[in-house]
Amino acid sequence: MKSLVLEKKDDLSLRDFPEIDRQEEILGPRDVRIKLHTVGICGSDVHYYTHGRIGPFVIEEPMILGHEGAGTVIETGAEVTGLSIGDRVCMEPGVPDPNSRAARLGIYNVDPAVRFWATPPVHGILRPTCVHPEAFTFKLPDNVSFAEGAMVEPLAVGVHAATKARVKPGDIGVVMGAGPIGLVTALSALAAGCARIYVSDLAEKKLEIAQSLNPAIIPVNIANDDLVARVMKDTDGWGADVVWEATGSPKAAATVFEPLAPGGCVVMIGGQAEPISYDAGAAMIREARVENIFRYAHVFPRCVAMLSSGAIDIKPLITRTFDFGDSVEAFEVAASAPPADVKMQIILPQ
Amino acid sequence: MKSLVLEKKDDLSLRDFPEIDRQEEILGPRDVRIKLHTVGICGSDVHYYTHGRIGPFVIEEPMILGHEGAGTVIETGAEVTGLSIGDRVCMEPGVPDPNSRAARLGIYNVDPAVRFWATPPVHGILRPTCVHPEAFTFKLPDNVSFAEGAMVEPLAVGVHAATKARVKPGDIGVVMGAGPIGLVTALSALAAGCARIYVSDLAEKKLEIAQSLNPAIIPVNIANDDLVARVMKDTDGWGADVVWEATGSPKAAATVFEPLAPGGCVVMIGGQAEPISYDAGAAMIREARVENIFRYAHVFPRCVAMLSSGAIDIKPLITRTFDFGDSVEAFEVAASAPPADVKMQIILPQ
Amino acid sequence: MKSLVLEKKDDLSLRDFPEIDRQEEILGPRDVRIKLHTVGICGSDVHYYTHGRIGPFVIEEPMILGHEGAGTVIETGAEVTGLSIGDRVCMEPGVPDPNSRAARLGIYNVDPAVRFWATPPVHGILRPTCVHPEAFTFKLPDNVSFAEGAMVEPLAVGVHAATKARVKPGDIGVVMGAGPIGLVTALSALAAGCARIYVSDLAEKKLEIAQSLNPAIIPVNIANDDLVARVMKDTDGWGADVVWEATGSPKAAATVFEPLAPGGCVVMIGGQAEPISYDAGAAMIREARVENIFRYAHVFPRCVAMLSSGAIDIKPLITRTFDFGDSVEAFEVAASAPPADVKMQIILPQ
Amino acid sequence: MKSLVLEKKDDLSLRDFPEIDRQEEILGPRDVRIKLHTVGICGSDVHYYTHGRIGPFVIEEPMILGHEGAGTVIETGAEVTGLSIGDRVCMEPGVPDPNSRAARLGIYNVDPAVRFWATPPVHGILRPTCVHPEAFTFKLPDNVSFAEGAMVEPLAVGVHAATKARVKPGDIGVVMGAGPIGLVTALSALAAGCARIYVSDLAEKKLEIAQSLNPAIIPVNIANDDLVARVMKDTDGWGADVVWEATGSPKAAATVFEPLAPGGCVVMIGGQAEPISYDAGAAMIREARVENIFRYAHVFPRCVAMLSSGAIDIKPLITRTFDFGDSVEAFEVAASAPPADVKMQIILPQ
Repeated sequence: MKSLVLEKKDDLSLRDFPEIDRQEEILGPRDVRIKLHTVGICGSDVHYYTHGRIGPFVIEEPMILGHEGAGTVIETGAEVTGLSIGDRVCMEPGVPDPNSRAARLGIYNVDPAVRFWATPPVHGILRPTCVHPEAFTFKLPDNVSFAEGAMVEPLAVGVHAATKARVKPGDIGVVMGAGPIGLVTALSALAAGCARIYVSDLAEKKLEIAQSLNPAIIPVNIANDDLVARVMKDTDGWGADVVWEATGSPKAAATVFEPLAPGGCVVMIGGQAEPISYDAGAAMIREARVENIFRYAHVFPRCVAMLSSGAIDIKPLITRTFDFGDSVEAFEVAASAPPADVKMQIILPQ
Repeated sequence: MKSLVLEKKDDLSLRDFPEIDRQEEILGPRDVRIKLHTVGICGSDVHYYTHGRIGPFVIEEPMILGHEGAGTVIETGAEVTGLSIGDRVCMEPGVPDPNSRAARLGIYNVDPAVRFWATPPVHGILRPTCVHPEAFTFKLPDNVSFAEGAMVEPLAVGVHAATKARVKPGDIGVVMGAGPIGLVTALSALAAGCARIYVSDLAEKKLEIAQSLNPAIIPVNIANDDLVARVMKDTDGWGADVVWEATGSPKAAATVFEPLAPGGCVVMIGGQAEPISYDAGAAMIREARVENIFRYAHVFPRCVAMLSSGAIDIKPLITRTFDFGDSVEAFEVAASAPPADVKMQIILPQ
Repeated sequence: MKSLVLEKKDDLSLRDFPEIDRQEEILGPRDVRIKLHTVGICGSDVHYYTHGRIGPFVIEEPMILGHEGAGTVIETGAEVTGLSIGDRVCMEPGVPDPNSRAARLGIYNVDPAVRFWATPPVHGILRPTCVHPEAFTFKLPDNVSFAEGAMVEPLAVGVHAATKARVKPGDIGVVMGAGPIGLVTALSALAAGCARIYVSDLAEKKLEIAQSLNPAIIPVNIANDDLVARVMKDTDGWGADVVWEATGSPKAAATVFEPLAPGGCVVMIGGQAEPISYDAGAAMIREARVENIFRYAHVFPRCVAMLSSGAIDIKPLITRTFDFGDSVEAFEVAASAPPADVKMQIILPQ
Repeated sequence: MKSLVLEKKDDLSLRDFPEIDRQEEILGPRDVRIKLHTVGICGSDVHYYTHGRIGPFVIEEPMILGHEGAGTVIETGAEVTGLSIGDRVCMEPGVPDPNSRAARLGIYNVDPAVRFWATPPVHGILRPTCVHPEAFTFKLPDNVSFAEGAMVEPLAVGVHAATKARVKPGDIGVVMGAGPIGLVTALSALAAGCARIYVSDLAEKKLEIAQSLNPAIIPVNIANDDLVARVMKDTDGWGADVVWEATGSPKAAATVFEPLAPGGCVVMIGGQAEPISYDAGAAMIREARVENIFRYAHVFPRCVAMLSSGAIDIKPLITRTFDFGDSVEAFEVAASAPPADVKMQIILPQ
């Protein structure tokens, strides 16, 4: 069976990939083997395809793409106790060294030794099967589909961002950016207790999608409307309790404190390639707390629970599905950034 | 116009109450005068009626009952800037000394100098009008009714209890007790991010009401079922992240740590007349955090925002409504504790 | 008796100032009248003198300088219960509106309505007496001198900065900047539980003073030494738990994340006139928390308690003392920024 | 060479113990082998000796005692990078499963799978050498002696208790109990920022030791003096910010809320064999937070840093030292609970 291999920048092929066997396919006593079912396409996958690198991570040898996955357990290691063959699961793609100082402190996501799927030189999971530690593999309840399971990874970013903000029930929030990360953040912020979320963007189509997700999401097109004026008007001049920066745009990031209330929190989610302009005076007079987040930790089982209970409905974000045989085309579509799409997924043959 | 006066234990009358004018009706520069519209009947009101006292607070002179209210602003003090005549509002019934040490710290609810409606010697609001500080009076949006506005006070207890727990999105919770406080706590805990709430009680009718509120509420009748076993089974032996004690029963309170996860939090809401039995060993091996709460602080505007946005639907808890002229009968019904009722409200003539 | 009046930029005079009586000298029921004894000279006082303004605050009419004071209660309002005539006290110079939203939340320092001594149009306290609310006036124990009492104000900045960092016992800290604020921050950080503090600066004399304060303070002259390399070497590559930015220099602020450990905290104390360069990537891979602080809240009584108990010895920072009659000369000396001085104080006639 | 073996209740012998070799002496790749130098005698060691059990842990086979140790690295595993032969070290005695759910969350001390020295069936370290994971072995700086290193374990309890309280600089604290745990807690609380600590006990000799440690420790003999009255008087009726319960006495535990300030924190350190009486009403009107602690996590390197920097001086607590050859006698002395002793240590032959 085949894998989706990024041979080099701009060069994808669906082909046998025998070299994987020698590297990552040995089942340890606390591992499970998973047959992949659904894998989502992430912006980082597309970026490796179109640019051949992300910051210091460079594609120097052929690498299998994909890290947002769900599948079925087909083999269990000798010491596995919580999972069984046939269990439907989703997988957390980054695995730390459990003995590192960061991992011991419970902040395993900032362990420099994390091995993360589809980040060179670690292969991704657009392939028939993979081996993964039980501790980072999470069972899906019957009412959570493979498609939803493969959405846990992007959702986890939003849930982590909401968790770090320490949302209090009834908070008013702002999410800057209506891309996939902005949308999962808005849904997570509402699930975390926000009464209302203002989502800002320049793209009307994205804002329409945002608005359709929940009546408590208020879209603000900053091409026409003044976000700060709107928030201040609706809060009697007090401001928003939390502002999530999810654009990755330096221009947006320079304005994060303006709609913020005294004592409020800014969460920086969007990666920024260069230093940004930080309005220290605006931050100071509000005594703003700023949380900078990196991926997520401890939230996969929480996401699964919220999908199962209905606290979050992630399905509207899945806007297109491809067969595995059409993977290359799927990436070409994704690289064109169609405005009405949020998340595309690929279904593997079972 | 008349007021509902508790003359003494077991003796209620609806009558003119001229003495109030001399005491509490002077409009200060930062006060508003409110025409009452809807007032809920609280268990404490009923307790004063049937027992003549609550702990150290004794009915020694006739006192007007009622502290869960909504109404309309009919006069504003000279320095009031945020409210106008005609605004529909709800009111936080406890007003602290803003210069007290507790108030300055932001924990005004534990200021011993708080004056709280319908707590001797402070009159309540089952009367035509009242005067209240603007700072503790909150405007109702158009889509929040007077009936919902009068529910903000009991809801505030639940929202405060959820806030103090510092719920993280996807937490699993247990609420012990399906009375009015247990139900507002369950709704608040879900709004605050819990994925699921197990509500335990002995009364089947109350559990049916609980279950009807939200599919993420799981009723457990501890007359028949083992709460701890159920929670442990559903969480793979880990336990619940938060346990709220809302029964006020010493027997229930003695078991709060059993369903709790390592590192979890117990919130004690239910007032306890006597010292309770505390399983320090069970608390210790989990490193449990215990939060003891007293009324609420800072949550009224949050409650209003969540009622308006739909994050919490409080209407199903309002099970019966009386005209003000039938107030005495309403209290007689409430004192009988009808099993299918959660909250009864009284509508004043407009 | 005379006051020290900043007539306008570069123009100080020690003269009668009768106009103050009509404005700020009325004793309210919760106020005390204080005879000033010792007043420290703050960098902001000097800046008003040499520049005539600080940001939006402009000297448009003659203003009395000074806000770091200690003195003796000479009159008490009718409702004052905690202070008596003859009590030796220090005073918190900023008084909020206790009914503001920020004050009610306990974050009174970010209330825009705060009235702060020696900030136009509010007069300072280089004058014979002042009137102040009891709630912001703190009794000095017998073993805390007036000179130490007048140091509480600058110390409060450091203690607030240490409090907001949520120092854990045994943390390793970095304080960037060895000026007065850097030094009080270093002392506060040690009192708050830091095991070691690296203090960085370019001025050798300041670093010598820093080093003399406590053997757990390690000076690093960044003209010659590499702060990041030093911290990383001493922490086995992990980094510092907390970094306090106390230079106000954009160049220093751009480097705050470099010596920081994963999961660490940066506290921005130094005011920054312009937006600064923020290395969002460096913040992100550490999941840094950034606290931006503004003056202080709730720390005056804490500072007094720590001076009294010996937890902090502030006396070495008082490097020169002037008689009130030499006030103008004192400001001229302060404006020259003598390298061996940290804090100069003025003693008023008693 | 010999080990100190608890054969059964009341039966200690210093003898060869060949069986240990087969069990715990294999050096894994991330382990180090340590030659023991100094081992402290803990109350739990004595309790096993005099009672043969602690709660569910029963001495069913001969077991080596001792878990408070310092020594020298004499061999390193293949993957050890941070320690070298000859390093002087102290060791954290409890080792969790790094893949457990609790460990992954960073709360490894509440992992039920923790293996803890001298807790059946795990042997202690009153023996020539032991093998331990590098991750739980901490290098001692030159200025920290073996005796101090062997005090890190008991000190860690106090530092953890101070950390969980989230002491703010200038807090006023109460420590109930002047036994070894009470004393390390008092020292830790001061190091963590408390301005003053009231230490209560019934034994005058213990209180004298407490008072001698630091001028900010105020002894209160509750046989003669009223702790609550004293604290309230000294704090103008406000109360203590933190109360640490370190007696393990149900009678003391029943009073923990009385000296506590509104919004304060109680930390339960002392193990309680039976449920205790909890004054829920007193806890509620203060909105007390209660932290229940179990051993410690993440504090060993912090303790070492504070011993090295001088933030904590632990040496006065070491009141008697025995040669290893006199171990049995040392335990007999310890079992007699001599009033002037805090900590006894045993020195092994080098």
